[in-house]
Amino acid sequence: MTEVPSRGFPETEFEARTHRAQFRMAAAAIDGILFTSEPEIRYFSGFQTLFWQSPTRPWFLYLPSTGKPIAIIPEIGAQLMHSTWLDDIRTWSAPCPEDDGVSLLTELLTPLARERKTLGVMKGHETGLRMPLGDYERLLQGLPNLSIADATGLVRSLRMIKSEREIEKLAHICAIGSRTFAKIPELAHEGQPFEDLFRAFRREGLAQGADDVPYLVGGADQGGYHDVISPPSRRPLARGDVLMLDTGAVWDGYYCDFDRNFAVGTADEATQRAYDVLWRATEAGINAARAGVTCHQLYQVMRGVIAELDDRGGDVGRLGHGLGMQLTEWPSHAPFDHTPIAENMVLTLEPSLSYGDARIMVHEENIVIREDGAQLLSERASRDLPVI
Amino acid sequence: MTEVPSRGFPETEFEARTHRAQFRMAAAAIDGILFTSEPEIRYFSGFQTLFWQSPTRPWFLYLPSTGKPIAIIPEIGAQLMHSTWLDDIRTWSAPCPEDDGVSLLTELLTPLARERKTLGVMKGHETGLRMPLGDYERLLQGLPNLSIADATGLVRSLRMIKSEREIEKLAHICAIGSRTFAKIPELAHEGQPFEDLFRAFRREGLAQGADDVPYLVGGADQGGYHDVISPPSRRPLARGDVLMLDTGAVWDGYYCDFDRNFAVGTADEATQRAYDVLWRATEAGINAARAGVTCHQLYQVMRGVIAELDDRGGDVGRLGHGLGMQLTEWPSHAPFDHTPIAENMVLTLEPSLSYGDARIMVHEENIVIREDGAQLLSERASRDLPVI
Repeated sequence: MTEVPSRGFPETEFEARTHRAQFRMAAAAIDGILFTSEPEIRYFSGFQTLFWQSPTRPWFLYLPSTGKPIAIIPEIGAQLMHSTWLDDIRTWSAPCPEDDGVSLLTELLTPLARERKTLGVMKGHETGLRMPLGDYERLLQGLPNLSIADATGLVRSLRMIKSEREIEKLAHICAIGSRTFAKIPELAHEGQPFEDLFRAFRREGLAQGADDVPYLVGGADQGGYHDVISPPSRRPLARGDVLMLDTGAVWDGYYCDFDRNFAVGTADEATQRAYDVLWRATEAGINAARAGVTCHQLYQVMRGVIAELDDRGGDVGRLGHGLGMQLTEWPSHAPFDHTPIAENMVLTLEPSLSYGDARIMVHEENIVIREDGAQLLSERASRDLPVI
Repeated sequence: MTEVPSRGFPETEFEARTHRAQFRMAAAAIDGILFTSEPEIRYFSGFQTLFWQSPTRPWFLYLPSTGKPIAIIPEIGAQLMHSTWLDDIRTWSAPCPEDDGVSLLTELLTPLARERKTLGVMKGHETGLRMPLGDYERLLQGLPNLSIADATGLVRSLRMIKSEREIEKLAHICAIGSRTFAKIPELAHEGQPFEDLFRAFRREGLAQGADDVPYLVGGADQGGYHDVISPPSRRPLARGDVLMLDTGAVWDGYYCDFDRNFAVGTADEATQRAYDVLWRATEAGINAARAGVTCHQLYQVMRGVIAELDDRGGDVGRLGHGLGMQLTEWPSHAPFDHTPIAENMVLTLEPSLSYGDARIMVHEENIVIREDGAQLLSERASRDLPVI
């Protein structure tokens, strides 16, 4: 068992995040940013709770051009928010459909609107609006002179680069994920309903130290699986199945995201060849992933190997992505993403291919980019398809 | 172990949901509804996957005024969507930030816009927009003659009333939650870091048959806890602690949501009194919860008992809520909610109070409303605070 990192972050980390954001806000002529979503609010405040799973109450964080962020939150979160580095915490008794924070936000933003300034909001790729759309529209109607700018690029540029403390947490959960996958030969057996293997995997992940295993998908079928996002069936594992599990386990609010393939009893040649191609595609990705290479170039390197077996380009849209407080984050290893890879990015490499009769296979590893290139956070998948 | 219900729903259930929605759409002069969020898309299609945890790709379901819903989804979900009752499934290779479904949606909705019809969108209480706000605005700009109406009330009125098959799933996960709580005296012990009890509880929930235990919060402190939404600390449980765990475990996409309190070794008189008041407040709620009573009235019944110890009204905003595919759903037992309780609603009763030196206590049970009143789905909490 590796040493467990400490939870949370020192105040200096939130100060640094805030200062970096404010520096970029000044450059982008954004005078304040209003956040509604969990990862951004946690990123700037340290506020961490599973209570976000309840859709009932909206939560807001306002990042001004100088000074600490301001929380505008339901009273039920006041005690926890006061334990963060924030000083200015404004609350209301929520839920209150007639006024769920809207008048508090209006009061906060009115000076900005009066001066015809610009408010940043997350409007771009991989974001959503975590407040009622009607309330958002009502808020803006009450602030007619406020300009709205998309803050996605600004926030993305910050969050993509991880701090050493973030990397430490990510390395920790990846190690937990690796130890959990190492137990699969003990946990899985012929005749076992696939659903029961999911349950056993989750229990093992918790035993290995994960706070939770919220994401677990997979496939298992004779000679290869056909789908990678389904919940498990009660179908029993059978000799000749190819089995894949893909997990997002979490520790202190940071995710691992990788998968492993196994053959039950035996594997046919087509499957072994698919495994070999994907293992080498991943290897090529690991070797190519270094500061300065773009995500598109990294995609092409992996595609080059995959094309040995499947030259159609695939339907999953990308061959990996960023990783951190969310299971999937910017950037994407895809033709549309020309982001230069940079030191301290944490990324997944996720080549996939179709083969045989509508069978698919996916491989995935997690890496951090260092000065001298990629460093594995997940324990590298075995060179040959493991038979259990 | 009770018998395990079957997973999923027969096609007739989705047909019935769709017809009921279309009947109400006609009455509300809504010509189609566009959904972006997981529970609504699942409700009308049966599409169930944990892949929603990845924020990268938007998913859309369009409910026309007649006929089956239409899915507009990333290609990665095509195989799984084809296993549902839907016929019309339109896909694109996502992610594609330049056009993540927007042109497919524009094509679909252009006839509606041309005829100056009304599109329903979820804009109200307890909803959010699960697609990039920028894409939503862009979509509407391309459909200038389309009217937008808030479909929240319509969907809420359907989803609040559960079918027998939904109730069966909810009863099953509540039974699993009850069996898990029953193990707490074995799982918890003095000196145990609170974090480890969380892990043990999750493992037990899985062993008892839960698909997952995504929501678990709680508190533990000398003489009473102070916060009910925090993640667990490493602080060891000590004699004199009052301990509370609140869980949302899930089976086949349906939640339980209730909590239990325990005293470690001993409990002081103030805590025992708080427990007694809340137990009786819950009991009053169970007796009062029947068809025709409003949520506000139910709130008042529970408040009447709570007032024996705490007459300030509390900061949590409500004393229970709906339960189903989400941890918390409409309605709310709160002064603002005058929804009449109806047969086959599944509800939580969740009275809480403050006492002593900033200590709080919460109780919670899950019920289904039947012809003759409330029927417990959770096993009723013991009459006196259990000492472990």
